Amino acid sequence: MLSWLWSKPAPAAELEFKGYAITSEDPAKWSDFSVIPFTPKTFSPTDVELRITHCGVCGSDVHTITAGWGEFERPMIVGHEIVGIVTRVGEKVKGIRAGDRVGIGAQIASCGECRACKSDNEQYCPDSIETYNGTYADGVRTMGGYSTAIRADERFVFPIPAGLSSAHAASMFCAGLTVYSPLVRNGAGPGKKIGVVGIGGLGHYAILFGKALGAEIYAFSSSPSKVDDIITMGADHVVITDDEGKFAEKYKETLDLIISTRDGVKTMPLAAFLSMLWVGGKLITVGLPDELFPALSGMDFTGNAALFGGSNLGCKKEAMEMLHLAAKKGIKPWIEELPMKDCKKAVQGVKANKVRYRYVLSQDLA
Amino acid sequence: MLSWLWSKPAPAAELEFKGYAITSEDPAKWSDFSVIPFTPKTFSPTDVELRITHCGVCGSDVHTITAGWGEFERPMIVGHEIVGIVTRVGEKVKGIRAGDRVGIGAQIASCGECRACKSDNEQYCPDSIETYNGTYADGVRTMGGYSTAIRADERFVFPIPAGLSSAHAASMFCAGLTVYSPLVRNGAGPGKKIGVVGIGGLGHYAILFGKALGAEIYAFSSSPSKVDDIITMGADHVVITDDEGKFAEKYKETLDLIISTRDGVKTMPLAAFLSMLWVGGKLITVGLPDELFPALSGMDFTGNAALFGGSNLGCKKEAMEMLHLAAKKGIKPWIEELPMKDCKKAVQGVKANKVRYRYVLSQDLA
Repeated sequence: MLSWLWSKPAPAAELEFKGYAITSEDPAKWSDFSVIPFTPKTFSPTDVELRITHCGVCGSDVHTITAGWGEFERPMIVGHEIVGIVTRVGEKVKGIRAGDRVGIGAQIASCGECRACKSDNEQYCPDSIETYNGTYADGVRTMGGYSTAIRADERFVFPIPAGLSSAHAASMFCAGLTVYSPLVRNGAGPGKKIGVVGIGGLGHYAILFGKALGAEIYAFSSSPSKVDDIITMGADHVVITDDEGKFAEKYKETLDLIISTRDGVKTMPLAAFLSMLWVGGKLITVGLPDELFPALSGMDFTGNAALFGGSNLGCKKEAMEMLHLAAKKGIKPWIEELPMKDCKKAVQGVKANKVRYRYVLSQDLA
Repeated sequence: MLSWLWSKPAPAAELEFKGYAITSEDPAKWSDFSVIPFTPKTFSPTDVELRITHCGVCGSDVHTITAGWGEFERPMIVGHEIVGIVTRVGEKVKGIRAGDRVGIGAQIASCGECRACKSDNEQYCPDSIETYNGTYADGVRTMGGYSTAIRADERFVFPIPAGLSSAHAASMFCAGLTVYSPLVRNGAGPGKKIGVVGIGGLGHYAILFGKALGAEIYAFSSSPSKVDDIITMGADHVVITDDEGKFAEKYKETLDLIISTRDGVKTMPLAAFLSMLWVGGKLITVGLPDELFPALSGMDFTGNAALFGGSNLGCKKEAMEMLHLAAKKGIKPWIEELPMKDCKKAVQGVKANKVRYRYVLSQDLA
């Protein structure tokens, strides 16, 4: 039996819900975590409860606790790249059993009834609830995965195939899925030329999954120091960008799709990036920068009918496809494991762009 | 025989190339036209020459002669919604004969060799030349349709079906085709809900063609005075917009496609318009405002994976489909005919947004 499957399910009664939380309102203490207990959601018949073993550290965690995306309620436990062992399932849960190894991403609930929920687009449900910094209808606040345990509706709990380690799977639940969904929704596959802008956590997954899907990958980075890594990840071309967009001239009308993970967009030569797209091609931002993108002119689209858009997470169907692709192709993300108590070091490393290419925290509280 | 087919082709020798031109550099005289002779392109074996009978008046004409799109070389004869009778064809021309009634739109040439030209995307050829304010390789400047005659490569000359009058066909070659192309490229048809923003020349065509293609049309206008017209054009819903975007709340995740013809975009609530799109829906601007669109945030796309893009004209294949659809369905644009000498009145009417909904100039010089 593989080493990450050894754990016997702990009895539900033993689970104590506690985690590393931001409690201070002082912006200088944005990365000061302290362990607090919290009240989980009310357990429902369609819920799954898990003892968390791993949690990836996402740029979203940093945007949230630095208030880059706006103010937030303390205490706040972030983390939405969660892996754990199921300790309890509600009586209506069908596809998951106690003892299963599962993941949870950045979405923890949706209405289940709307057009989006009924068409494998549950991430676009208007009543979607996020895994942390959200509020259930009964007022319970959602708390993330820098913690011991979590509960979620089965629709947001993803069984992990045996071939994939928990540490490797963790960051797939946000970073991986966030790029996998727009790749497959926009036809990534053999014969397609796909640009990936910004090679951090999300970007490195876009290279790995884009290649696994059979596409030709053009990686765009402003960091010459990353070139060797990018080639090792499997990119077919590496282009070092400048803020004037001169790099783009050579690739006019070349790419079928661009996935942009770039966070510093104020100086992004967005029109130049768009000009590299083939007719009707799309530039999809999966990064959610604190700042606005440069304003565009109608003229920026006339040369090639380019489109600029976004994407949010992925649906469960895509998550399961992604996990099986990763298991089948042996995809191993580039991660650095830390004990969960080092979450301060991790969020600081993400903010300083030091991470190569994802931190994954392992459980040390329970 | 129908009245607009009475003209016998004039002998080529009689054609005199002259037109109503802007000659002054004084911005106050932006709409002062005077008749000048000009030198047409060198006639090539693949060229068609026509005696112009009609020319529509496009917003592009006004953007150009007011220098809203940048400086331009005088003298300048604008006009790119051209109908005429063929007077001469080159020896390699296959599908067009002298005496045919044909149209020419806003594109007059392309390389003919590139991926775009070979895939019915010639409007996205990097070497595309515009019908006026362009320059051929031999240095000849292109002059538009407020004139007596024009020459163009057969690939940019569109035979007009018998069921369509010349006055009705004229404005289809830019305004009509500019909305028809993004409609059909984005699946306009039965079961689709399509928003049309800004009901002027282009917008009224988007309603007419959208309905003819079988879609359900939501017209968005800031002008309550146009509501009766919009209903008569066939829109299924009319929504009066505000600059705060409050109107959009009711239509969240409703529309499959939005065609925006809006010109005043500085105050456009772009994010609100995007929020009305169903998952993966597109807002396509076919207007080319002088000003920039409002800057967008990554968050503006996360609710529905919306896309913001543009489109430029249409290809010949689409132009021919459009003309046959118009003839078959009896589509009649809402136009006001003026003699060509009234081009000053026409461009002033377009600039003042007085036109309901397109001016068409008829020949009075030859």
